[in-house]
Amino acid sequence: MSRTVYVNGEYLPEEQATVSIFDRGFLFADGVYEVTSVIGGKLLDFDGHAARLERSLNELEMPNPISRDDLLAVHRELVSANGIEDGLVYLQITRGAADRDFAYPEDPTPTIVLFTQAKPGLADNPKAQTGMKVISIEDQRWGRRDIKTVQLLYPSMGKMMAKAAGADDAWMTEEGHVTEGTSNNAYIVKDGTIITRHLGTEILHGITRAAVLRFAKEAQMKVEERAFTLDEAKEADEAFITSASTFVMPVVEIDGTALGDGTPGPVARRLREIYLDESRKTAV
Amino acid sequence: MSRTVYVNGEYLPEEQATVSIFDRGFLFADGVYEVTSVIGGKLLDFDGHAARLERSLNELEMPNPISRDDLLAVHRELVSANGIEDGLVYLQITRGAADRDFAYPEDPTPTIVLFTQAKPGLADNPKAQTGMKVISIEDQRWGRRDIKTVQLLYPSMGKMMAKAAGADDAWMTEEGHVTEGTSNNAYIVKDGTIITRHLGTEILHGITRAAVLRFAKEAQMKVEERAFTLDEAKEADEAFITSASTFVMPVVEIDGTALGDGTPGPVARRLREIYLDESRKTAV
Repeated sequence: MSRTVYVNGEYLPEEQATVSIFDRGFLFADGVYEVTSVIGGKLLDFDGHAARLERSLNELEMPNPISRDDLLAVHRELVSANGIEDGLVYLQITRGAADRDFAYPEDPTPTIVLFTQAKPGLADNPKAQTGMKVISIEDQRWGRRDIKTVQLLYPSMGKMMAKAAGADDAWMTEEGHVTEGTSNNAYIVKDGTIITRHLGTEILHGITRAAVLRFAKEAQMKVEERAFTLDEAKEADEAFITSASTFVMPVVEIDGTALGDGTPGPVARRLREIYLDESRKTAV
Repeated sequence: MSRTVYVNGEYLPEEQATVSIFDRGFLFADGVYEVTSVIGGKLLDFDGHAARLERSLNELEMPNPISRDDLLAVHRELVSANGIEDGLVYLQITRGAADRDFAYPEDPTPTIVLFTQAKPGLADNPKAQTGMKVISIEDQRWGRRDIKTVQLLYPSMGKMMAKAAGADDAWMTEEGHVTEGTSNNAYIVKDGTIITRHLGTEILHGITRAAVLRFAKEAQMKVEERAFTLDEAKEADEAFITSASTFVMPVVEIDGTALGDGTPGPVARRLREIYLDESRKTAV
């Protein structure tokens, strides 16, 4: 069955969903995106994603073609049209089509595209029971990783390097310090303290990250937001990642070094439970 | 009049030229490109561009959907169909459409797109008489600038920063050393020696750069391929850029500091003349 997708105001069968070859998203990677999880037919952290979208657009001086309320309506319509119980809604906005020029067009008409991906059992991913293995790679991305742009070639290459090494993902490092995973924020736990890189231009300001840190603090867990080294990570008691599509996912091995007893740690397991419980409550 | 463009084997009016919203060029900037100049209806340095395209594709393990001869035929057909006397042919290849996943699709069908841009009087750009003004900005691009990918958002932002500052372009610096311009290689001339950054992952391996350095050496000019600082550039006797669309273009001002007497220098003027003469001879 063909999905129904949304392109510039129209609901279309996916086979008919196209953009101009002159779209600046295609020619210049001049576009931003968001991915929102759906659990039980409801959207998780929608307001967080809508707020970050607005920030990304502002940072790039790109006009926003849609209001928060209309955006929510499109999300809901696609979830319903495609019968998504568990899955993702992907949203991309670009500066639109214009004859090719590095300079921005003076009066751009943004392109907006949304589609769903069904992921049955998304919250019951068996990987949460066994944990992920990661490798480390040099962080070669551009300098403004706080803007959620579609310049995702290096994360994509990183994912392929991980696969080639028999791992699930790659953690990127800069001057010996871990920045983040290919599409997730990275955490370690040492002596009960959760350590994750502080916000800045070096990492994405994860919506799930913000929620998880809030829940951790509410649960009286100790949190340190600071850069940590790869060596520190390998000696940690446990580790995990967070992202909109994996929620909280334990990491049990880094570059072949098992963490703790090589199974998901108690902090990651507990945070995953809290995150799923709490975000289901506020799902819309 | 609508241009004729080329998309995946078909010649189409530009209004009908589209790619899937699932194209990895659109979703992941998972694509590479080339721009070839047309002067007097003929292609400049076609073989150089075809060879670099092949290299970019190899670096990304992306299949090449077209032979060198067919690629040349499409270039010529578009130049002819659109009556291009002076202008550009833009070519982009992506890993094609696939359901969204950071991992590459196992059996990708690449997307190939070509279109022309008419630039009447391209070789007689009046800017060559007055020279360009550049500003310096921090180089925030990803680490593999030797691969000609469509991850061009930062160069685009740099062009806008230059415009906002009343300049023509921006030179990017890394640890105080100039890497290159937003879409061109950067050169300075001091005491008769042409200095331009050595090849590496930090800069694009310019096709025009290679030709110009070869012509410079043939003309007994002294060439040093090494990193140079922004301070060194501001104290240079002259400066210039090279690219497929600007050939050799003098730079007369950096961050408001005039170079020499603030007019195009003799080395840049002579190299522009040689480059245009020589590349016209081998145009196809």
